[in-house]
Amino acid sequence: TVIAFPVLLLLLFSLFVTYDEHAHALAQTNATDHMKNEVYRVYPFFADVQVMIFIGFACLLAFMRLYGFGGVVFNFLTATFSVQWAIIIQGFCHFYHDGKIHIGVFNFINAEFACAVVLISFGAVLGKTSPVQLLIMALLEIPIFAVTDWLIVTYLKINDAGGSIVIHIFACYFGLGVTRMLYRPSLNDGHANLTTSYQSDILSVLGTLFLWVFWPSFNSALTLPGDDQHRAIIHTFIGLSSSTLTAFALSALLDKKGKLSMSDIQNVTLAGGVTVGATVDMMVTPACAFALGVVGCCACMLGYKYLTPFMATKLKIQDQCGIHNLHGLTGLISTLAAIIAILMANEDTYAIYQVAALGLALATSVLGGLLTGAILKLPFLSQPTDDYCFDDRVYFEVPNDFDAASTLTRQSQK
Amino acid sequence: TVIAFPVLLLLLFSLFVTYDEHAHALAQTNATDHMKNEVYRVYPFFADVQVMIFIGFACLLAFMRLYGFGGVVFNFLTATFSVQWAIIIQGFCHFYHDGKIHIGVFNFINAEFACAVVLISFGAVLGKTSPVQLLIMALLEIPIFAVTDWLIVTYLKINDAGGSIVIHIFACYFGLGVTRMLYRPSLNDGHANLTTSYQSDILSVLGTLFLWVFWPSFNSALTLPGDDQHRAIIHTFIGLSSSTLTAFALSALLDKKGKLSMSDIQNVTLAGGVTVGATVDMMVTPACAFALGVVGCCACMLGYKYLTPFMATKLKIQDQCGIHNLHGLTGLISTLAAIIAILMANEDTYAIYQVAALGLALATSVLGGLLTGAILKLPFLSQPTDDYCFDDRVYFEVPNDFDAASTLTRQSQK
Amino acid sequence: TVIAFPVLLLLLFSLFVTYDEHAHALAQTNATDHMKNEVYRVYPFFADVQVMIFIGFACLLAFMRLYGFGGVVFNFLTATFSVQWAIIIQGFCHFYHDGKIHIGVFNFINAEFACAVVLISFGAVLGKTSPVQLLIMALLEIPIFAVTDWLIVTYLKINDAGGSIVIHIFACYFGLGVTRMLYRPSLNDGHANLTTSYQSDILSVLGTLFLWVFWPSFNSALTLPGDDQHRAIIHTFIGLSSSTLTAFALSALLDKKGKLSMSDIQNVTLAGGVTVGATVDMMVTPACAFALGVVGCCACMLGYKYLTPFMATKLKIQDQCGIHNLHGLTGLISTLAAIIAILMANEDTYAIYQVAALGLALATSVLGGLLTGAILKLPFLSQPTDDYCFDDRVYFEVPNDFDAASTLTRQSQK
Repeated sequence: TVIAFPVLLLLLFSLFVTYDEHAHALAQTNATDHMKNEVYRVYPFFADVQVMIFIGFACLLAFMRLYGFGGVVFNFLTATFSVQWAIIIQGFCHFYHDGKIHIGVFNFINAEFACAVVLISFGAVLGKTSPVQLLIMALLEIPIFAVTDWLIVTYLKINDAGGSIVIHIFACYFGLGVTRMLYRPSLNDGHANLTTSYQSDILSVLGTLFLWVFWPSFNSALTLPGDDQHRAIIHTFIGLSSSTLTAFALSALLDKKGKLSMSDIQNVTLAGGVTVGATVDMMVTPACAFALGVVGCCACMLGYKYLTPFMATKLKIQDQCGIHNLHGLTGLISTLAAIIAILMANEDTYAIYQVAALGLALATSVLGGLLTGAILKLPFLSQPTDDYCFDDRVYFEVPNDFDAASTLTRQSQK
Repeated sequence: TVIAFPVLLLLLFSLFVTYDEHAHALAQTNATDHMKNEVYRVYPFFADVQVMIFIGFACLLAFMRLYGFGGVVFNFLTATFSVQWAIIIQGFCHFYHDGKIHIGVFNFINAEFACAVVLISFGAVLGKTSPVQLLIMALLEIPIFAVTDWLIVTYLKINDAGGSIVIHIFACYFGLGVTRMLYRPSLNDGHANLTTSYQSDILSVLGTLFLWVFWPSFNSALTLPGDDQHRAIIHTFIGLSSSTLTAFALSALLDKKGKLSMSDIQNVTLAGGVTVGATVDMMVTPACAFALGVVGCCACMLGYKYLTPFMATKLKIQDQCGIHNLHGLTGLISTLAAIIAILMANEDTYAIYQVAALGLALATSVLGGLLTGAILKLPFLSQPTDDYCFDDRVYFEVPNDFDAASTLTRQSQK
Repeated sequence: TVIAFPVLLLLLFSLFVTYDEHAHALAQTNATDHMKNEVYRVYPFFADVQVMIFIGFACLLAFMRLYGFGGVVFNFLTATFSVQWAIIIQGFCHFYHDGKIHIGVFNFINAEFACAVVLISFGAVLGKTSPVQLLIMALLEIPIFAVTDWLIVTYLKINDAGGSIVIHIFACYFGLGVTRMLYRPSLNDGHANLTTSYQSDILSVLGTLFLWVFWPSFNSALTLPGDDQHRAIIHTFIGLSSSTLTAFALSALLDKKGKLSMSDIQNVTLAGGVTVGATVDMMVTPACAFALGVVGCCACMLGYKYLTPFMATKLKIQDQCGIHNLHGLTGLISTLAAIIAILMANEDTYAIYQVAALGLALATSVLGGLLTGAILKLPFLSQPTDDYCFDDRVYFEVPNDFDAASTLTRQSQK
């Protein structure tokens, strides 16, 4: 069945896709200044976001001891399909005229944002889904996202340059909807594979660092050029730095022995990147970006500590990577910050739009996620059994030393 | 003897190398707009290709359990020497006037393409050659490549922006020529070191991802600015995506248990980057790039499955990393695609040039490779014995845990 | 206490930090060409240096078998704090007017240079300091560096585009001062944790490669635009290449069995990046950059072999990562090269300024380092005991397989 995905895409590309005016030879004239081609403005940001998606996410998701292949490789598969699928779907929404979708590198950036949505949702079900399920999830999530995004951009024109509402909140609640439907009671008692190894922890934190370093490019990729883009970079860098410093402090403070937890370093440090999102290009002052990083970090940290276990046991929402802390809570804080900033500028109407966008994103993502989760339960999608969750052996040929640490432990127990 | 290489280069730099007009202070006037210096146009592409060569290749080649140092470090050595040596050799071919080679960052990009040629050929003999042999190989391959390239560029003016003919086909058949001469019968029975480890597989796929992410920069680095460069980026990205999706599907389909093979993920996913090469800047449609990715991927996958074993046993060509699949077959498909595209544009003369270039590249690479392989067999180049192939202990001080997995296995067998 | 650091920064940001004219909305007019915003010129260099600092340094410092978390994570913490703190301190020195510090991405690059200073010094005490000590070190080193830098830039106007004097020499002697005060006699007898593992060696050399690839961006980030910046890139690339080739040759030559040492590959290959620093934008010829790489590499290599052990035992200066070889000796060579180049241009006055800057940097760094080291000995800063140096268990929750190799060894000895 997997072969259907490239075939479907090839068909759609053949029927509908052509170049936009920046990539079409016939759109150039003798007067065209080739150095002003849009590609030079957007390609550097595209490349940075590529590193985040294909390397940053990949490493970050590879934090489990026996699911390193799964983290890196399923991220690769899901991301590649999502971007191409988004080029088509977003193409029909935004770039369709004269019977064709017109593409250039600019479309690719938009498609990568849609891809980021899928990968964030993926975090909620990491290790509990087959690759076919992930592709089906992308197949369904991209159109639901694209329509929501199109409605918000067309009718609500909100402030959300960093995508806190459109990307992070949507992705989070969609993922939670999916994982709610895929609830596995036995996992609430823990799972032998749910541990990290020394190497997987280091790899994962490198993923964090790649995301951290290029996040300013992500948050500024779709802002207006000039001082807006400049501020987006400044705020993101400051917000990430402040959430990082706060995360280190809180991680040590909240631990009984005062030690640092690698899981905090891998996740909570990034909270500021989301929290500054909705106000990232506004004149909110650098101090405000710093404060947003601190507040986002605190919410994210407390979420990991208290909310995630609560949701798993009481609400039957098993959020594997804690996306509700890193993308949901922080996204809500960011939205609130944007509303306050808009109210302080006496733009009350726009504040209502902001609230409407939040409501729309929440509604479509929750419903879409639940629906998608229900479909993913179809029996022929080869979902792994509880025992074989978080285990690369199910989907990969693995080398002999795959579970060397267990062998070692068994030996010492003899 | 290794000290001779930097000394030789220092001598040549002293005698022949000066700055080009973009880097020479005296070539600037009061009217010079410094922001229009060529460095700003070419440096970003140079940096991206640097990441591919020094990090992407390094990680990809480190896939063996006991040859991680060799993969990363010999790639570092070979690449560094190749680039500097190519600056000199290509300098004499292309940038020599008034008794001097004139260099700038633009030359560095050209030199990196020559370096990529050497590293691809390196893939055929990975683990079976000493560092001195690798340096000698680079010493010989760079001039043969530079002259071939110079002949093709000067007399044939072919379409090959992504270097499918000049780079990939040349590099592949040169490498096969070398490995033919270095044939080791005993290796056809397998080798104990020819396995991966869990960590080496993850590292290698990260190398793939670095190559994947920056391949659009590679294929577009030397195109015309503007829409040509824009299309090169678009086609490469689409071609890589389609070969990736196809590779996942085929890997699962061709495996008896339906599992994915990391080796396929590490190599076959990249096939599309080569297949789109020769037409990468043409107006071939995005769908065509997608189709080229699919076709290239199929050829590459089947090559790994059937052709590589056949060549090793019947033709005495032991192609360690399967470069014939990832660079040879795909290069040929790309050339064929370019010829078809040119014929469809009724440019029959140019199609003949394309064929001539292919013939020239094949001839010089095979002959050059065989000759170089013969020289590499000279006894004083410290080639490792069969037993010590693919083993870091021969050339490196290794840490105690170097072969921990074997120790573990031996213990469990006690 | 760690929570004090983000709180302090938040306070300072609130009171003193605003946007500069490239990031402030009100500084733009209808006539502003947004594409000429400074952000487009400086952001690519900023991003490259970010990769060096947060990924390159992180991996390079993770070379110890049991201190991988420490290397990556303390680098993350120290770097994040240092950059934000430097934005404030350098802001008061250079960008303070109308009661506010005016910031943009340009300030961030300057702050990253200050951060690099702290991380280089960190190399001298790696594994022997607590995270609180590292933060205190950054707290003190940044202002001492900023004032020294301000004095040199304002009054001496020296040639030092790559920062050989201002960054490398200062950082080195500051670090040596600190480690002198933190002298631990017992470590001169070796320490069980002072070994690498196969994986940590590979990770560390990847760090080297990230530094290597982006070093041209570092050395050229603050030069004049145009041919100056172009030459800085050229010289750095050539210098790094020549030191790399020389390092491989010397590493094999100086080893009894002719094997390569990973420690040499990880460190000595980078010497050329520092040695070309002070002359990096001058018209010194490419051959001169090559020669500087060779000379710097030789000095660095001999330093590791003979000087570091001598300093540890005789001078009580335990230089953990050998920063005196990679940054001190090479920095001195670079300074000398600049002085010679200036004398050859008959600019004798400027040569005196260069010497004065060197003297100033040496004086402030040694004194500042000794003072800082004395403060770091205060008992409540939770410095690890000798036994627990180079051990992640002190500061991190570690996974079960943390010390698997030792377990293995103990078993085999039974």
